[in-house]
Amino acid sequence: MDDGKRLITSLFLIILLSLSSVEPTKKIPARNPCKRLVFFFHDILYNGKNAKNATSAIVGAPAWGNRTILAGQSHFGDVVVFDDPITLDNNLHSTPVGRAQGFYLYDKKDIFTSWLGFSFVFNSTEHKGSINFAGADPLMNKTRDISVIGGTGDFFMARGIATLTTDAFEGEVYFRLYVDIKLFECW
Amino acid sequence: MDDGKRLITSLFLIILLSLSSVEPTKKIPARNPCKRLVFFFHDILYNGKNAKNATSAIVGAPAWGNRTILAGQSHFGDVVVFDDPITLDNNLHSTPVGRAQGFYLYDKKDIFTSWLGFSFVFNSTEHKGSINFAGADPLMNKTRDISVIGGTGDFFMARGIATLTTDAFEGEVYFRLYVDIKLFECW
Amino acid sequence: MDDGKRLITSLFLIILLSLSSVEPTKKIPARNPCKRLVFFFHDILYNGKNAKNATSAIVGAPAWGNRTILAGQSHFGDVVVFDDPITLDNNLHSTPVGRAQGFYLYDKKDIFTSWLGFSFVFNSTEHKGSINFAGADPLMNKTRDISVIGGTGDFFMARGIATLTTDAFEGEVYFRLYVDIKLFECW
Repeated sequence: MDDGKRLITSLFLIILLSLSSVEPTKKIPARNPCKRLVFFFHDILYNGKNAKNATSAIVGAPAWGNRTILAGQSHFGDVVVFDDPITLDNNLHSTPVGRAQGFYLYDKKDIFTSWLGFSFVFNSTEHKGSINFAGADPLMNKTRDISVIGGTGDFFMARGIATLTTDAFEGEVYFRLYVDIKLFECW
Repeated sequence: MDDGKRLITSLFLIILLSLSSVEPTKKIPARNPCKRLVFFFHDILYNGKNAKNATSAIVGAPAWGNRTILAGQSHFGDVVVFDDPITLDNNLHSTPVGRAQGFYLYDKKDIFTSWLGFSFVFNSTEHKGSINFAGADPLMNKTRDISVIGGTGDFFMARGIATLTTDAFEGEVYFRLYVDIKLFECW
Repeated sequence: MDDGKRLITSLFLIILLSLSSVEPTKKIPARNPCKRLVFFFHDILYNGKNAKNATSAIVGAPAWGNRTILAGQSHFGDVVVFDDPITLDNNLHSTPVGRAQGFYLYDKKDIFTSWLGFSFVFNSTEHKGSINFAGADPLMNKTRDISVIGGTGDFFMARGIATLTTDAFEGEVYFRLYVDIKLFECW
């Protein structure tokens, strides 16, 4: 092996090794999720008559509202606490794989929009741990993105986006959301 | 030193250096924002007489409070839902570029402090998407830092700090915040 | 080019390329915290008789509840705002090093579980700044993990996990939490 060849070989190796370890300090916007999960969850709002089945209840309301009927003006100011079953298909009666727990509030007078702070709490053979969410939900849009702000257990330190779609609703008592969770930071 | 030995030495060094350079566990504290945005937003609290103009309302209060007048003891326990216009200058009547939507609550008896959970929701030619915020707001301080906990659309996966300054207030009905958003994680 | 020069050139290139090539795209799941902090905090719930000592108050409740007594059905729907002292040991009367400020809500009918959104606000010689938390707290479990979703000041851009343990409770008025904060992202 002569000197020229050897130099070229060395350089080639250097470059190869370097390339395999590249990355600027800033994250590369690799928009492929490192983990993806889809679920449904089901909300049945307490209306004074469905105490047994209700999974959520109004707990705050503006001066012009009450805690049994959603307020006028697009329910502006109503705060709802929920403990909703999470299912793998769209059937309310399927065995839940976890619970969606937290709150939402309605935050616009002239159209339905809400703000969500909640967790998916899993304790199945499939998943253990929780995923924490927060964000604005302009619920008249077909799809809406909220943030995955953290996670625990199997979802340790997770960050990402959850895309919500209203899959069904019945009056003001029942709605079902389809949630497409895309994690972009996995540990 | 013969050729074989030299090649091995070179390779050894390459590998050694590569291994030692696989990322510090800690992020490099580059404290220059990757994106910076400044806005104003305007909150007009419902007081029983300003239904038309109000952009926010008390929806929760302690036992000693109500939902029309902020409670005594520094409003401790009052929870307010808001849908406030975001403007580029300090004029309430400027065309909004988005809405600040979510809630704040007063959380100290002997001085005014609050806790915020809200989003900036944009839908202009300039910005599409949302920025999600959470954090403590000791509002008697000239400036206060809260966290940017996530974002969607143009602000996909954003993290950072928002510095709040009370730019103006009128009694207990109107206040205007100046918000200096500094993102340190951009995708 | 003689051997010595060539070796030096190679080494120089190796070093140059290595320096520019720091860090793989995905985070290495180094599960050793970059910062760890342990504290206690103390919650005394307003019950109509303890106005002076109470550090928290019910501010939202379901239709079947009120704001002086925690509701039936595992307090489902009760929302509590708090300003709790943080201490270094388990003594309520120790000098606080900061305040835990924010809210929790009870979110299950058949067992006690809650959801938390709050901050640790420090202003001591030891720590300045805040740590922001969110997450589900299935409080009947011995330990529960919630997310550190951000921080300011000394805790600029922090992310991590806080493990909560109920260290003591007295009826429905007082509880003390032990909080083990493990940050995995430090700036």
